[in-house]
Amino acid sequence: MNAVYVVPTKTPSDVSGIQKLIDEKVIAPEDIIAVLGKTEGNGCVNDWTRGYSVDTLKHYFTGLMNEEAAEKIIYVMSGGTEGILSPHLALICKNDKVCDCGLEKSLAVGVTRTPTILPEELGRMRQVELVEASVKEAMSSAGIEDPKDVHFVQIKCPLLTSQRIKEAEERGNTVVTQDTYKSMGFSRGACALGVALALGEVPEGSVTDESVCHDWSLYSEVASTSAGIELMECEIILFGNAKGAGSCYYMEHDVMKDSIDAEAVMRAMDKAKLGYLRTKNDESREFVHILAKAESDPTGYVRGRRNAMNEDSDINHTRHARAVVGGVLASIVGDPMIYVSGGGEHQGPAGGGPVAVIGKVKA
Amino acid sequence: MNAVYVVPTKTPSDVSGIQKLIDEKVIAPEDIIAVLGKTEGNGCVNDWTRGYSVDTLKHYFTGLMNEEAAEKIIYVMSGGTEGILSPHLALICKNDKVCDCGLEKSLAVGVTRTPTILPEELGRMRQVELVEASVKEAMSSAGIEDPKDVHFVQIKCPLLTSQRIKEAEERGNTVVTQDTYKSMGFSRGACALGVALALGEVPEGSVTDESVCHDWSLYSEVASTSAGIELMECEIILFGNAKGAGSCYYMEHDVMKDSIDAEAVMRAMDKAKLGYLRTKNDESREFVHILAKAESDPTGYVRGRRNAMNEDSDINHTRHARAVVGGVLASIVGDPMIYVSGGGEHQGPAGGGPVAVIGKVKA
Amino acid sequence: MNAVYVVPTKTPSDVSGIQKLIDEKVIAPEDIIAVLGKTEGNGCVNDWTRGYSVDTLKHYFTGLMNEEAAEKIIYVMSGGTEGILSPHLALICKNDKVCDCGLEKSLAVGVTRTPTILPEELGRMRQVELVEASVKEAMSSAGIEDPKDVHFVQIKCPLLTSQRIKEAEERGNTVVTQDTYKSMGFSRGACALGVALALGEVPEGSVTDESVCHDWSLYSEVASTSAGIELMECEIILFGNAKGAGSCYYMEHDVMKDSIDAEAVMRAMDKAKLGYLRTKNDESREFVHILAKAESDPTGYVRGRRNAMNEDSDINHTRHARAVVGGVLASIVGDPMIYVSGGGEHQGPAGGGPVAVIGKVKA
Amino acid sequence: MNAVYVVPTKTPSDVSGIQKLIDEKVIAPEDIIAVLGKTEGNGCVNDWTRGYSVDTLKHYFTGLMNEEAAEKIIYVMSGGTEGILSPHLALICKNDKVCDCGLEKSLAVGVTRTPTILPEELGRMRQVELVEASVKEAMSSAGIEDPKDVHFVQIKCPLLTSQRIKEAEERGNTVVTQDTYKSMGFSRGACALGVALALGEVPEGSVTDESVCHDWSLYSEVASTSAGIELMECEIILFGNAKGAGSCYYMEHDVMKDSIDAEAVMRAMDKAKLGYLRTKNDESREFVHILAKAESDPTGYVRGRRNAMNEDSDINHTRHARAVVGGVLASIVGDPMIYVSGGGEHQGPAGGGPVAVIGKVKA
Repeated sequence: MNAVYVVPTKTPSDVSGIQKLIDEKVIAPEDIIAVLGKTEGNGCVNDWTRGYSVDTLKHYFTGLMNEEAAEKIIYVMSGGTEGILSPHLALICKNDKVCDCGLEKSLAVGVTRTPTILPEELGRMRQVELVEASVKEAMSSAGIEDPKDVHFVQIKCPLLTSQRIKEAEERGNTVVTQDTYKSMGFSRGACALGVALALGEVPEGSVTDESVCHDWSLYSEVASTSAGIELMECEIILFGNAKGAGSCYYMEHDVMKDSIDAEAVMRAMDKAKLGYLRTKNDESREFVHILAKAESDPTGYVRGRRNAMNEDSDINHTRHARAVVGGVLASIVGDPMIYVSGGGEHQGPAGGGPVAVIGKVKA
Repeated sequence: MNAVYVVPTKTPSDVSGIQKLIDEKVIAPEDIIAVLGKTEGNGCVNDWTRGYSVDTLKHYFTGLMNEEAAEKIIYVMSGGTEGILSPHLALICKNDKVCDCGLEKSLAVGVTRTPTILPEELGRMRQVELVEASVKEAMSSAGIEDPKDVHFVQIKCPLLTSQRIKEAEERGNTVVTQDTYKSMGFSRGACALGVALALGEVPEGSVTDESVCHDWSLYSEVASTSAGIELMECEIILFGNAKGAGSCYYMEHDVMKDSIDAEAVMRAMDKAKLGYLRTKNDESREFVHILAKAESDPTGYVRGRRNAMNEDSDINHTRHARAVVGGVLASIVGDPMIYVSGGGEHQGPAGGGPVAVIGKVKA
Repeated sequence: MNAVYVVPTKTPSDVSGIQKLIDEKVIAPEDIIAVLGKTEGNGCVNDWTRGYSVDTLKHYFTGLMNEEAAEKIIYVMSGGTEGILSPHLALICKNDKVCDCGLEKSLAVGVTRTPTILPEELGRMRQVELVEASVKEAMSSAGIEDPKDVHFVQIKCPLLTSQRIKEAEERGNTVVTQDTYKSMGFSRGACALGVALALGEVPEGSVTDESVCHDWSLYSEVASTSAGIELMECEIILFGNAKGAGSCYYMEHDVMKDSIDAEAVMRAMDKAKLGYLRTKNDESREFVHILAKAESDPTGYVRGRRNAMNEDSDINHTRHARAVVGGVLASIVGDPMIYVSGGGEHQGPAGGGPVAVIGKVKA
Repeated sequence: MNAVYVVPTKTPSDVSGIQKLIDEKVIAPEDIIAVLGKTEGNGCVNDWTRGYSVDTLKHYFTGLMNEEAAEKIIYVMSGGTEGILSPHLALICKNDKVCDCGLEKSLAVGVTRTPTILPEELGRMRQVELVEASVKEAMSSAGIEDPKDVHFVQIKCPLLTSQRIKEAEERGNTVVTQDTYKSMGFSRGACALGVALALGEVPEGSVTDESVCHDWSLYSEVASTSAGIELMECEIILFGNAKGAGSCYYMEHDVMKDSIDAEAVMRAMDKAKLGYLRTKNDESREFVHILAKAESDPTGYVRGRRNAMNEDSDINHTRHARAVVGGVLASIVGDPMIYVSGGGEHQGPAGGGPVAVIGKVKA
């Protein structure tokens, strides 16, 4: 069965939360198939906290197991814990146990990674297609048949740096943008379109080089993609519910239409039968984690009111957006140790984004 | 009767929203006793959008009326519209009409200002006492007898700059801090303690120089104070309900215990009989405005979870806090054009703050 | 004769330096044909200090003279006084006096402005051509015949905002970029190419829509362009030396090949016969002002060494660049109250930029 | 003999420059006694690039040698490569070779570290005294007898975080400041005063708790201290020239009176007989490295001109200062891969700081 444990971190290099779970025999290092974390950098181009955290985890797991086993784990660090967001690591685990809680469909996770994306391929069809293939593979490995049972597809993808642009140009190739910050959006967008194609959310053949970060009518309701300086391939963690998965964990999702769409979050919690604020739901269930994408509305307006995020040259709009969505979600679920990742190109409607809840049947 | 109109602004120097209300004869320039706005700067020391907006408004009202009339209006600009917060001006008006809506107690506003605060007096008892006297005067001028009927006391206060520190030192005096950013907190804190004394929220004699920004057990539940580079005195707008005030507007408030305390906001909306999210309240009432203070918790923890606001050397914690509280409030009331001001020293409990709602009986 | 006075400012709305010159009868308000200043905002999209300063100056001069006279003055505010750069206003004056200092060629200034640039025209040939025409007109009005006698062409130009992009799109037109920060570069670049065409620095017909911000081999050695949110046309101040201009002021210039090219600055000072550091030049001359453009090298390398400016998502590279060039210039001329403006697209070679010196024959 | 090699880094975790020197047999891992680097974070509280770099180097050297040998090396990472500053590592090496270049006095380096500094000891006499003792020990181990032969004392010291403040308070102790950013200044200041005492630059008994960050008349001309989140003790690298040290490397220093004091840099280069700009010095010498401290002038003025660094709530003044001093130094020595560290409390006069040059007799 698959299981999810969320542990706080004191710094980007803190592994004490994992160590405690191992010491208490809640998990074994070999159970961990993926680590999905929030680190406290700016979440933008020069955010080294992501790489620092990943390097630390790899060294740590190499020490506990060996280098090969440590490299098999997928590490997805999303930078940026603005506002009340709390740095943490979510450990995605898989073991041989089968739960007898009686859920018909329960948590199933598939992890895959694409081949290396060259700087000149980033943000273009080659990246879209590599991701599409990899998502299908992850779904199959998770034992999920119906794309409707996929509730969150987290992808970590590369970005461009001056150095990488130079390398592409030395090979005689162009890149999708000379702007390193903007390259993060192209990479995230291409991944999301790959997910949308893989899950049949957009028609085959509807996506071209020109669609990426231009045609916002094309999007996935469950993609969550995040760019980082520390990798050159895409790493995929696909979450859903599968029949006979034998877990006491399960997922649900909904789509926020904008960054203050509390009702979408409440609907997702209701679907998951979890209590929040004044709402009592099924008492046999407990809240485990919530995951969402945040982005500033490209129009500069939310509910008809102008905001200053897109004009702010001191703070990037991704940082504003994470702070807002983090506040909204935490105020509903009552916990700031949640996953909110910025930059939602082609992930939900423009200005909005997917929100997914992980719940658990109490023992 | 007192009335409140909220108009959007396109820039810190945009007066078109006011002009429209005047053109449509909704208000006359002579009705306006105070303007309470949010401008889109950083809300910190070098935020010139506040002064820009005030200078523009003074020129504008001088043109409509004359300089003396323009100077009589109180202008309180709070900088910082992080996240979805939308720049706007709230016009606090007073005219001779009496509403027949039947409210027993309704909106009553008093405006006053203290004498000049010298740089060496800032953040110390002299500022506390000047504010205390001025708040009592504002309450009396609003015709409010019971301090419990005061729901929001907005104060704009000065800050220290290198230049002002130099001037104090040239007079042979010390200042409360050499740190210009920190001086904003001392000024806000001293004002809030002045409010708390005036309204009997803390015992007489309980406040000393040492209390300011140190003893967090002393606080006001209705103070909202905001520091700006553009003035050297304190300007006070006191909001409450008074018997026989004859307005169709009214206020209620509650206290957020932390920055994600959605339930406090819901309670304030319930007291005001206003609908929100899935809650239908009295249909004869309509939402006008919501005002709140935001601050990062000084412990660095919210609901037991660590956040990175206080350690962030790229973005000041006041900016993080406004983004969060703005998101939480807007997600509940469904409108981002709301007033959230940063830096809540002695305004509500540490990490939390007052939230006040203005409602109106529909015509 | 033309004359230049540089006065410090305490805030973006401080006019006391100008008032002092008027009180001391050094200048009359009617003498001022242009004000070229540095204000202390971020110099990027949401920098309101420029507009604040310009609005304040217009109100001030309207009070001293009348609105028509105040509007005739050209105001060019460049935002961003990073590092040791000191906020100031340079007053460009013209009066009937003729100096007998004996300079053959001396300071001659021409000021013009283009028609309104629509958002959809910004960064494209229409803007280039309007600027080209306007620069030729300024040269002619300054009485300068040889383009080699033009030493600095300062242009203030518009930028795109979400609002302006929306307006263009509502007219059915595209804009050059959706990125408001990036639009500043396109606008600056188009202006610089207009200067280069006007002065014959690039061949006629060599510039197209595609050249702007792409073909860095095309540039002007004397253009200095600066984008601001507060205007929709281009305002031009052309500085040079003209025969028989009768001024005791004069200019020289050189081109910095990168942001630490101290030797170019020293050459410009030598040409102007001004002393600096250990170099004594003509003692009958005195230093008045230095003006330069700063930009981060688009390659991310200076003298073969990698820097982090272009990858920095916390501080825009224009801010880094101004801090560096400001430091280099001030260390040579010994004065931080100098003009360094960011974003040098097509102004000097990529990563470098023009530097111009104003000197004066001592009375 | 001691030797110094400076290698560029592509990221905070790049060790390829060291590896190349080892591959080419220029150095052996065992030669390295200290690594002094610049990493590309913000150099403030939440700068994780320093820790990332140090962790990476320790893992790397553990792989090359063993953990004990890796831990013996002193790692001092200074965060913040604003402007043209180029991220790099300076390797301080020691081997058995003796150079026959004939220098009477040549480079001698001593490395030591203090015991752990508790959060409640930081910025107070306990830290001062621990540093004083450790500096004397470093001088002695370097074989330097005359304090005048000490040219640079680099110290890495701890800072306070919310967590550390909490720990001190749980022990019933106060800390020197609640402001985590400000704690960096107190820690740097206490270290510098420790150096000043050790080298006799200030009289014994002249320093008390109250002196730290208050009495700016007390300072060292050669201290360079830098605070980081990644350590709790002070690490010291003392550089000077010693008789019979047998190295072809040597040092000189001077003191910049402000951040644009190019003449101090030129004097240091002259003392070191190194060429720069138009100055040809001893052709048998070559430039190796330059090290300096940068700080904003606490008065807010440089050469009588106001700047905006201390009022800037978007960019910390340490970042402005490094950009300026980096530009000035690089423009003189012609190389941006230099060491400029921020925050010069008690390191040189207020607003200024030490500048030290490493030269080498050519083989």
